[in-house]
Amino acid sequence: MHQLLDSITQPTLLLNATIARNNIRKMAEKARRLGIRLRPHLKTPQAHEVARWFREEGVSGLTVSSLRMAEYFAKDNWRDITVAFPLNIRELATVEHLLNQNVQLNLLVENTEAVKALQETLKKPIDLFIKINFGNNRAGLMPQDKQGISAVIQQIEKGPHTRFAGFLGHPGQTYQARGQAEILAVHQESLQIVQQLRTTFGQGRPALEISLEDTPGAVVGESFDGVDELRPGNFVFFDLMQQQIGSCDWNDIAVCMACPVVAKHPDRREIVLYGGAVHFSKDRIEGLEGRPIYGFAVRWTDEGWSEPDPQAHLFKLSQEHGMLRANEPWFEQTQIGDLIGILPVHSCLTADLMKRMITLKGATIETLHA
Amino acid sequence: MHQLLDSITQPTLLLNATIARNNIRKMAEKARRLGIRLRPHLKTPQAHEVARWFREEGVSGLTVSSLRMAEYFAKDNWRDITVAFPLNIRELATVEHLLNQNVQLNLLVENTEAVKALQETLKKPIDLFIKINFGNNRAGLMPQDKQGISAVIQQIEKGPHTRFAGFLGHPGQTYQARGQAEILAVHQESLQIVQQLRTTFGQGRPALEISLEDTPGAVVGESFDGVDELRPGNFVFFDLMQQQIGSCDWNDIAVCMACPVVAKHPDRREIVLYGGAVHFSKDRIEGLEGRPIYGFAVRWTDEGWSEPDPQAHLFKLSQEHGMLRANEPWFEQTQIGDLIGILPVHSCLTADLMKRMITLKGATIETLHA
Repeated sequence: MHQLLDSITQPTLLLNATIARNNIRKMAEKARRLGIRLRPHLKTPQAHEVARWFREEGVSGLTVSSLRMAEYFAKDNWRDITVAFPLNIRELATVEHLLNQNVQLNLLVENTEAVKALQETLKKPIDLFIKINFGNNRAGLMPQDKQGISAVIQQIEKGPHTRFAGFLGHPGQTYQARGQAEILAVHQESLQIVQQLRTTFGQGRPALEISLEDTPGAVVGESFDGVDELRPGNFVFFDLMQQQIGSCDWNDIAVCMACPVVAKHPDRREIVLYGGAVHFSKDRIEGLEGRPIYGFAVRWTDEGWSEPDPQAHLFKLSQEHGMLRANEPWFEQTQIGDLIGILPVHSCLTADLMKRMITLKGATIETLHA
Repeated sequence: MHQLLDSITQPTLLLNATIARNNIRKMAEKARRLGIRLRPHLKTPQAHEVARWFREEGVSGLTVSSLRMAEYFAKDNWRDITVAFPLNIRELATVEHLLNQNVQLNLLVENTEAVKALQETLKKPIDLFIKINFGNNRAGLMPQDKQGISAVIQQIEKGPHTRFAGFLGHPGQTYQARGQAEILAVHQESLQIVQQLRTTFGQGRPALEISLEDTPGAVVGESFDGVDELRPGNFVFFDLMQQQIGSCDWNDIAVCMACPVVAKHPDRREIVLYGGAVHFSKDRIEGLEGRPIYGFAVRWTDEGWSEPDPQAHLFKLSQEHGMLRANEPWFEQTQIGDLIGILPVHSCLTADLMKRMITLKGATIETLHA
């Protein structure tokens, strides 16, 4: 570990691959046990290497959040990809390009306009899922909007190349949950919506699939009646937000930022780190009195890093600066030029910004953006 | 304009180069009129092309926020670069590399440790500025900390290659200001600190320089007694945050995101855009009752875009989704597949994430990260 740290000069995203692979293995085992397909969302690591770890666990299909990300994984021979974002009809050329590479592409629609645009262009078959609003109020048709959903299904079934594959949802309101009981309550509501959809639209459609879940629900849920596919993403790395929600313990968090110390201010007991909004992103959790927290510090150990310590937390980020407020032991033990480890609040955005990760064995894993 | 928009398929950062060059010209003229050197901060555009526009206005030295950015601009023949971030002593090899390219490098220090680390390594002369806390409480020594400042000066003056060049400050508390009067009040306090520093440390040092300012102070201030150099950055593009502070009018904002419409939800009068936290960043301004706003919509015109309309604003961002709340006219006139223009809250972070800009004439300007 010390040899690795000695080689670091700038803000660096460290990846404990053992933890990440454990997170992957646990989720894959759970899906097998439940008899549900795991189609992990790769928007978090955005890396060929991490996707290969899923392949070793028997995963054959991925979820991505953009057509560009679909192209990136198609390059590494993934041939079954769901783009879990409402189809952007300005990118039909990319859709065609992917189909021409014999990618089994599963797209998300929620209006007839997108379906018609596809039908006017497509020369190869494509599976379409209808996005359902499972309570997150982001994208998707309301589950009780029978008329709206039927209209989209009817348009899809006009074909000839579009096939209605089923419903897809992301109950992201679990991110407001605190603790497993609240996550489970959201999850139970999701399962009721699943049953409602099956009752209303399942008759005469034995192949209809339902694809569900976000990390908190996939981790905490145990019953998944009527669900065919799980699409969690963040669980590969986890982060402080997931720990706060109750989806993971601190020792499940697989990524840590290493940030050089550039200044110390004894009067305010603040440490200035090289590591700011262009490294972490500005997602935050709330501390005392609603004050923002952008990360908790950890101590380096022989095998990686310690439990996060709220006594040393990032309380302000500007473009390149990270401001750490530290108690006396932290402040006194920290020297100019040291590296401080910070567990990120939102690992998806941090990995997106950092563009590459370094494993604890010193290997570089590049992302789509590297 | 319509031809340009027709060519756009994904979230795209548009740059009105005429506005940006006007912003540059106005600031360069102001600096000339005041007899102060302009050393613009390139952390906002991070692009060779934009730096060249400054060169056309007679600017010969730049400010950057990282050694990596210094290397990027050195490649385009800039030979006088200030790194306005406390020296990270883990990157001394990069410092040496820049000095070996005959870059006049001006670094920032605020502790003796960083100076000593430099002195143990350097083989070529370097100018060091001491970072002073002008009230922003981020980095820097307190201006009244005579003992602390003197200790760093003494260490610098031990040389042989380190030269004490002066003081540098960033009164970033102007970002809390609302309106020009509040900006000016901060600016006046800064000028008092400048005088205090000159009185205490200027004797026997006729070449001592003071480098100051952020965008709000540089735009609004008219008296700059004792200041040798201005280092604003954001003013090249401006953004909604600067408009809220009072540094610019909406028609000074030179960048606009173009985001495809992927879904519409009449029940909530919400429009789902392709354009999220990985495009905008999560910096925000506050709307009614403290609710976050991540951007205001504009209408496309023949020459670019209209005034921003608070009746259509981004109220939520997730990784790739932007959620726009719109009044009835906006909602009705917007179609699936349209592009909506959004003025960003913080153009520095948006440009950093987007990695490239497209001018209204269709030219691509790449940044450091492209």
